[in-house]
Amino acid sequence: MIRIAIIGYGNLGKACERIAIDSDDMEIFGIFTRREPSALTSPYGTRFFRQNEIECYKEQIDVACICTGSANDVTELAGRLAKSFNTVDSFDTHSKMIEYADDMRKSALEGDRLCFIGIGWDPGLFSLMRALFNGVLRDGNTQTFWGRGVSQGHSEAIRRIEGVMDAKQYTVPKEEALRIAREGKGGTLTDRDRHLRECYVVAEDGADKERIKREIVTMPNYFEPYDTIVHFVSENEFKKNHSGMAHAGFVMRGGSVNDKAQALEFSLRLDSNPDFTASVLMAYARANAKLYAAGERGVRTILDIPVSALLDNCFIANVRKYV
Amino acid sequence: MIRIAIIGYGNLGKACERIAIDSDDMEIFGIFTRREPSALTSPYGTRFFRQNEIECYKEQIDVACICTGSANDVTELAGRLAKSFNTVDSFDTHSKMIEYADDMRKSALEGDRLCFIGIGWDPGLFSLMRALFNGVLRDGNTQTFWGRGVSQGHSEAIRRIEGVMDAKQYTVPKEEALRIAREGKGGTLTDRDRHLRECYVVAEDGADKERIKREIVTMPNYFEPYDTIVHFVSENEFKKNHSGMAHAGFVMRGGSVNDKAQALEFSLRLDSNPDFTASVLMAYARANAKLYAAGERGVRTILDIPVSALLDNCFIANVRKYV
Repeated sequence: MIRIAIIGYGNLGKACERIAIDSDDMEIFGIFTRREPSALTSPYGTRFFRQNEIECYKEQIDVACICTGSANDVTELAGRLAKSFNTVDSFDTHSKMIEYADDMRKSALEGDRLCFIGIGWDPGLFSLMRALFNGVLRDGNTQTFWGRGVSQGHSEAIRRIEGVMDAKQYTVPKEEALRIAREGKGGTLTDRDRHLRECYVVAEDGADKERIKREIVTMPNYFEPYDTIVHFVSENEFKKNHSGMAHAGFVMRGGSVNDKAQALEFSLRLDSNPDFTASVLMAYARANAKLYAAGERGVRTILDIPVSALLDNCFIANVRKYV
Repeated sequence: MIRIAIIGYGNLGKACERIAIDSDDMEIFGIFTRREPSALTSPYGTRFFRQNEIECYKEQIDVACICTGSANDVTELAGRLAKSFNTVDSFDTHSKMIEYADDMRKSALEGDRLCFIGIGWDPGLFSLMRALFNGVLRDGNTQTFWGRGVSQGHSEAIRRIEGVMDAKQYTVPKEEALRIAREGKGGTLTDRDRHLRECYVVAEDGADKERIKREIVTMPNYFEPYDTIVHFVSENEFKKNHSGMAHAGFVMRGGSVNDKAQALEFSLRLDSNPDFTASVLMAYARANAKLYAAGERGVRTILDIPVSALLDNCFIANVRKYV
C-alpha cells in the first residue's frame, strides 16, 4: 500500500482524496491544511493535520501530494517538503519551471528523496506531447490550444472590475486556427487568431454595463490581444449554467519527413478539470513510490519519467497489454 | 556525431538513410544488405556492405537501425546484432513482443549493449499512448483504430488469390465506431463495427471476377469478420491511384474520474507511412546513443524510454521549450 498525504483541501485535494480512497493500492495517511484541522471534515473520515507539523509524520508517509492553490504556495512548500518527503505537484508556472526544478533538485537530493514537478495536463501531459511530437517529427510546427474551458486567471481579472459581482471567462479555440495548425502552418497565427475569450458577467444592481464591457475588452494582456465577447447574465443564470469545471485542449504538430506531410495530434475533453488533474497526479504518485523504491532520487518532470512506471507491474513484463 | 548503420534497403531503410543524411548529428557508416552490395547504389553515395560481415565494423558503428522486412528476419537478425551493437527496430508482431524482449535482453546484456524494440507508430507511439492513457485514466475503455491506410498483410492475402494480378486493401475506421469509442463505450464494438475493408483489385484478363470477389469477402480472419468492399480497377488506374503509402490512426480512451466523464485521444495522419516510421526510428536511435553513453544497458520498449531522451540536450535542462 502506498501511504499518501494530501496537502491542501480545495477542489484538487478533494479529488485526490476520493481517487486514493477508491484505489486498492493506496491509503491516505491524512490531509494537511493551513486551516484549523478541527474545523474540517471529510466525507471519508480522513484525518486532518496542521500543515506545519507534517515533518512529525515523516516515517508514515510514502508520497506527499501537493494540492495547494497558487504557484507561490507550491514553490515555498514543495521546497520544504522535498527535504523530508517524496512529492508530486502540479506547479503550473511554465516560465519558472527550470528555476523551480533547480531548487527542488537541491532539496530532494539533500533529503535523499524523489520529487515529481509540473504533473497535470498543462504542464504535464501537454508538455510530454510537445516534447514527444518535436522528437519524432523534427521538421514541423507545434501549436497548443486550450478550451473550451474556464480560465481562472481571466475570470479573476474580470471580478476585480468595479460593479462586477461575479464572472467566468471561457477560453475558446477558433476552428479556423485549429485547421491551420493541423496542417503545421500555425507558426504565424496571432493570439487573436487562436483563441476567443467569452465572458459571462453578473453586474451589480445599477452598474454601468457599457463601462464594464469596455474595461474588459480593453484590458491589456488579458483581453486586449483577443476577440472578446461579453454576456451579462443574472445571478441565477450564472449559478445554473456557469458553475461547471469542464475543460478541453489540443496539442498538434504538423510537419514533414522526407518532403512528405505528417501530422500528430493529442486532445482531451474533460467534464471536470480538477478531477482529471488529480487523476494524473495520483497516477504519478504511484509511479513515484515505485521509482523511489527502485532507487531513483532527485527531481523529475513528466518528460523524465518513463510511461512504464505508471503500469501496475512496471517495466517490461507488463507491456503485453499495450504493445 | 552518431554513427548509424542501416540494415536492409527497402522503403524503411531508404527513408532512414535520407533522414540520417539530413541530420546534423548523424553520419551513416553504411547500409548492410543480404543482396550483392556492388549491385546497389544510393542517391547519397552511401556505402553498401554484406549483412553477414557487419561484426567486422563493430567499432565504427554506434547504433544499428534494423530495417529488414518481415518479423522473422527481425527476430533472428536482431538477436545476433544485439550481441555486438546497440540496436533500434520496429518489430511489429504485437503478440510476440514479450518473448522477443526476453530474447533480446539476454543478447543485449551478453554484449553489454542497449537495444530498443518495437519502435514505430504501432507498436510504438500507439503503445505509449495506450499505456499512458490507461495510467492516467484508470477507469475507462481504450480503442485503437487504423486507417484510412493500406494493410500490407491484407493486400498480400488478396494477391494470392487465383486470377488476381495486383491488389491493395485499405483499412477504414467507421465513423460511428469512432464516435462510440470517444465516449469510452467502445468495449462492445465488434471487428465489423470498427473497421471497413476496401479492396482495389486488378484481375487477370478473363478471370472470374465474381469468384474472386467471393473468395475475398469470405476469407476467414482476413475479411470474413468485416464488411468488405471490392472494386475491380484497370492496371493503369491501379498504378495511378493506389501506389501511395499514406496511413492514419487513432488511439482513444474514454472513462471517468470521480464520476466525471473524461476523454483522451491521440491521432496521426501520415502522407507516407514508411517515412514517418523511419522518423520515429531515427529519433529513438538518437535517444539510444545518449542513454547508452549514460550507462544504460539491456532492452527497452518505447514505454521504458523517457521522452526527455529524445530532446537535443536531454534531461531537465532542455524542458523549458515544452513545459
